Amino acid sequence: MAARKIVIDCDPGQDDAIAILMALASPDRLEVAAITTVAGNVPLALTEKNARALVELAGRDDVPVHIGCSRPMLRPLETAEYVHGETGLNGANLAEPRIAPAPGHAVDAILGILAREPEGSVTLVPTGPLTNVALAMVKAPEVMARAAQIVLMGGAVDLGNVTPAAEFNIYVDPHAAHVVFGFGLPITMFGLDVTHKVTVTDARLEAIRAIDTPAGRAAYGMLEFYNRYDRQRYDTEGGPLHDPCTIAWLLEPALFEGRDCFVEIDTTSPTCIGRTVVDWWRRSDHPPNATVMREADADGFFRLLNDCLKRL
Amino acid sequence: MAARKIVIDCDPGQDDAIAILMALASPDRLEVAAITTVAGNVPLALTEKNARALVELAGRDDVPVHIGCSRPMLRPLETAEYVHGETGLNGANLAEPRIAPAPGHAVDAILGILAREPEGSVTLVPTGPLTNVALAMVKAPEVMARAAQIVLMGGAVDLGNVTPAAEFNIYVDPHAAHVVFGFGLPITMFGLDVTHKVTVTDARLEAIRAIDTPAGRAAYGMLEFYNRYDRQRYDTEGGPLHDPCTIAWLLEPALFEGRDCFVEIDTTSPTCIGRTVVDWWRRSDHPPNATVMREADADGFFRLLNDCLKRL
Amino acid sequence: MAARKIVIDCDPGQDDAIAILMALASPDRLEVAAITTVAGNVPLALTEKNARALVELAGRDDVPVHIGCSRPMLRPLETAEYVHGETGLNGANLAEPRIAPAPGHAVDAILGILAREPEGSVTLVPTGPLTNVALAMVKAPEVMARAAQIVLMGGAVDLGNVTPAAEFNIYVDPHAAHVVFGFGLPITMFGLDVTHKVTVTDARLEAIRAIDTPAGRAAYGMLEFYNRYDRQRYDTEGGPLHDPCTIAWLLEPALFEGRDCFVEIDTTSPTCIGRTVVDWWRRSDHPPNATVMREADADGFFRLLNDCLKRL
Amino acid sequence: MAARKIVIDCDPGQDDAIAILMALASPDRLEVAAITTVAGNVPLALTEKNARALVELAGRDDVPVHIGCSRPMLRPLETAEYVHGETGLNGANLAEPRIAPAPGHAVDAILGILAREPEGSVTLVPTGPLTNVALAMVKAPEVMARAAQIVLMGGAVDLGNVTPAAEFNIYVDPHAAHVVFGFGLPITMFGLDVTHKVTVTDARLEAIRAIDTPAGRAAYGMLEFYNRYDRQRYDTEGGPLHDPCTIAWLLEPALFEGRDCFVEIDTTSPTCIGRTVVDWWRRSDHPPNATVMREADADGFFRLLNDCLKRL
Repeated sequence: MAARKIVIDCDPGQDDAIAILMALASPDRLEVAAITTVAGNVPLALTEKNARALVELAGRDDVPVHIGCSRPMLRPLETAEYVHGETGLNGANLAEPRIAPAPGHAVDAILGILAREPEGSVTLVPTGPLTNVALAMVKAPEVMARAAQIVLMGGAVDLGNVTPAAEFNIYVDPHAAHVVFGFGLPITMFGLDVTHKVTVTDARLEAIRAIDTPAGRAAYGMLEFYNRYDRQRYDTEGGPLHDPCTIAWLLEPALFEGRDCFVEIDTTSPTCIGRTVVDWWRRSDHPPNATVMREADADGFFRLLNDCLKRL
Repeated sequence: MAARKIVIDCDPGQDDAIAILMALASPDRLEVAAITTVAGNVPLALTEKNARALVELAGRDDVPVHIGCSRPMLRPLETAEYVHGETGLNGANLAEPRIAPAPGHAVDAILGILAREPEGSVTLVPTGPLTNVALAMVKAPEVMARAAQIVLMGGAVDLGNVTPAAEFNIYVDPHAAHVVFGFGLPITMFGLDVTHKVTVTDARLEAIRAIDTPAGRAAYGMLEFYNRYDRQRYDTEGGPLHDPCTIAWLLEPALFEGRDCFVEIDTTSPTCIGRTVVDWWRRSDHPPNATVMREADADGFFRLLNDCLKRL
Repeated sequence: MAARKIVIDCDPGQDDAIAILMALASPDRLEVAAITTVAGNVPLALTEKNARALVELAGRDDVPVHIGCSRPMLRPLETAEYVHGETGLNGANLAEPRIAPAPGHAVDAILGILAREPEGSVTLVPTGPLTNVALAMVKAPEVMARAAQIVLMGGAVDLGNVTPAAEFNIYVDPHAAHVVFGFGLPITMFGLDVTHKVTVTDARLEAIRAIDTPAGRAAYGMLEFYNRYDRQRYDTEGGPLHDPCTIAWLLEPALFEGRDCFVEIDTTSPTCIGRTVVDWWRRSDHPPNATVMREADADGFFRLLNDCLKRL
Repeated sequence: MAARKIVIDCDPGQDDAIAILMALASPDRLEVAAITTVAGNVPLALTEKNARALVELAGRDDVPVHIGCSRPMLRPLETAEYVHGETGLNGANLAEPRIAPAPGHAVDAILGILAREPEGSVTLVPTGPLTNVALAMVKAPEVMARAAQIVLMGGAVDLGNVTPAAEFNIYVDPHAAHVVFGFGLPITMFGLDVTHKVTVTDARLEAIRAIDTPAGRAAYGMLEFYNRYDRQRYDTEGGPLHDPCTIAWLLEPALFEGRDCFVEIDTTSPTCIGRTVVDWWRRSDHPPNATVMREADADGFFRLLNDCLKRL
């Protein structure tokens, strides 16, 4: 079987970084047509630089990295240096990237790939705020309709993380999320419910430490840093590997379980803005617009992650 | 120790009924100063009649039953005959009550009791929409401030039941809930997270069937009916005994565990109206305004329930 | 023809005061069954005291003054000492009232009058925030349905005064206004559009100065003070006599012109909360729920006002 | 003085058409760098075709016409065939255009012009929903910041037209309007308050009829059709020439008067969504972000219009 073509739209961030590394380590399964970047965990100038550094780390300078939106659709940008550190990749100790950003705005890069590839052949993998994806949908809906599916990290069935109601990616640009969930493409959503089941425990971190390659060392450094915030804030055994769940599912769907649900985004409430309101119990008559994942085989996930890291 | 004085403000409803029976069965611990009724599970004309029938069933005609608000503060009334049956107490087979409602509106009954009893001596136990309690707070805040605390059933940390975001009691009158949670009295909140851990399994239902008294038979009949909806809807082992958690906690606080949190009510969102937004992880700087229960000793609860029913 | 029975629900306030004096000066036309007071222009402790002082000024100690709600239904109280002065009646120089407040809460006074008078015989005249009226509607809708009509000061078709969108009375308790406009009684609404056409110019103020009676002197003093704010803020010729429009219309309906419209209250928007959204051009299919006044015969109004003041 | 460079972003629409003709008739004063089109009065396929037909009518095939967004940012598209007829230009009887749309999306055309022209030299003139302009702002804020100003038709200080609260252009894409009014460029806003003072009376229509040129005949036909709706709906003397006010002000600023105000867009309220909340009386501390026009010299406007039409 040919590799599945994907575009990773991201805001690295340590967990975006792990997702990118996993994808780039699996060229027989996933062909990364482009990495597009957006403001989110840290400002755009850092997320796009981080993305370039990561393709270099993976030895994949051939993958174009496009610069996208520096601000959400309506709201002022909020970032999360308190989680990711001031570079977004604290702990990775990556060199300044030598390759330049690819020409063309991320929005146009996404549209260009969808326009030239066969209809239904490209999967979009957003792991940051959905600004780029939503802008592309408003700008050229007939082109975006050519995508196969959207596999995204964002939202929560239960509690949020940045507010009691909302998860960070959706909260940063809830209007973009509203556009994406209302657009009509098939969506697979990895929210906090499932990503909090994929935590970097001490044992798992030690296993990564043992991978003595540049990618392994960077991964270890990032995750060691990344673990600090969640351990202090939530008293868990380790940080949740949010974004890589998307890539892991594309590689091994059996690692996750979920349910088809109708999901709406709150864009108006002072207390709930950015909430992914998931009709888990099918109380409404709205047909499902997303497969919402809630269960993960965490050991299987980390086995897959280690395999990927070792291959780089 | 003297019995604790309580006012049960309710909309029976089978689970309200169980709460009332548990309270009336425990006169050494709880003195029910009044039962006040509100529209909710079924319209007011039924909830107040049901309350009168229940005090008669318990042989406690001395407890005054007051008629309260027939509509929520702002929204049109929504009822839940699909859960409770068209009488609200389907399955109980109670006779038409002979005692009359007590004179005076529920709002004034609550205020009258608080005005005449020592400050800090009366606990309010709302198990329905909070219309009566909120109206009393707006009408005479200085009198309501004399209450000891509010122990209520309503809301959810995670998923709602009537919508994906909201639990029934809060959803029916979210504006009243906003008033109550913002008023400043100590609140203990039993939401769906904890009440769904107190389910009427077959074994527990059979144990109640064995209590061959009028109260036991009525309880069995009600719960047998009540179980049908949740089993079909949620695929659980039995219906959740929402309202009685309040009384059980007053009798045996050790049966439950929770956390002090800040809780806000969504009163404006098309998708989240009626949601109790619980800051479980203390993301905001708001000081806690409620103790939110999330864990229950279900076996302990049913032991207590059976003890109560046997005493009636 | 017998005098029309009215209840004035108010928060005096110089313009409420003028309304009260006009009504009390017209016993052959208007029988003031009670004055009920609410927090608004100034806190409740002042509005109820002011109301008592005004019935004394008018020599009408027989009119009961009831104390009502000290806070809006949901929102924290906002007052307007910047308009009315710290007493609410600055400029009037009234003595401390000797009569006591009438027993019974304003909400219950309103309900009591409606219950005992013939159905359809009592007109409610709210000139402050609608908290008392709305609470009575939620507490006993079947009694409130016995009122003949509601003639209120509040709202605006065009610009607000306290915010760009909202007029003070409605802004202070928009939830109460939502209840009142949705209740189903006939409403005649005097909003800023019409009240700003009834301004206290220098010539009109001088004419009042010439009425050398206690009521005339108090009216002059109040209006001289009241004029200051609007002249400075809006650069008009004088302050708008908001509240007295209600009484003037009851005495001489031909002084005003308006249109039957559907009116909704915004209770949720950060920018528009408290706006009376008036469907002046009948864009929606909602049937009218209010007669919205927009034109006034200002000279006729001041002739009527002077006649009233001279009679006291 | 060199002609001022403008981009007209529009959804023709008879009144957009008059605006375009006025601009194209004034090459010594206004250089139309491009016309960009958006969905609004009618769907995009019609607005872009109408724009092409209009540059042909004016003999200005050199002006590029770009196709833009076919849908608002978040909301489903609402159109206004009930005003403009099913083509958007009913009454004009224009031939099918021969010229093709210019290559490149409207969003990119706007950004391209701003990037290549000197900073501060290009004026944007939106006369339809603000989707294209807002998308460009989110996509490349640093490029959009190079514009000199925005001169737009939209909004209302007082009553709306499509709802009691909102004017059509803003209502169709309130989220885009929120982006534009919050972006920071100088804005001159022509809302309904001023455009309803520029009405096509019978006498004015007859004067246009006398201009016996292709442009004159098309203008007459369009305005004769366009007048029908407003006369029936609002009982006015003729239709309001909304969009051409923008061009008229660029040509003769003295025709209009207004005030610098803070303007916010309601994006959340069920009743007020799309309202331009104008702080006319400066109640808030927000500094002004727009010059809001409210007065027009209508005779002067029609003199200018006729001069323009005669020149084509």
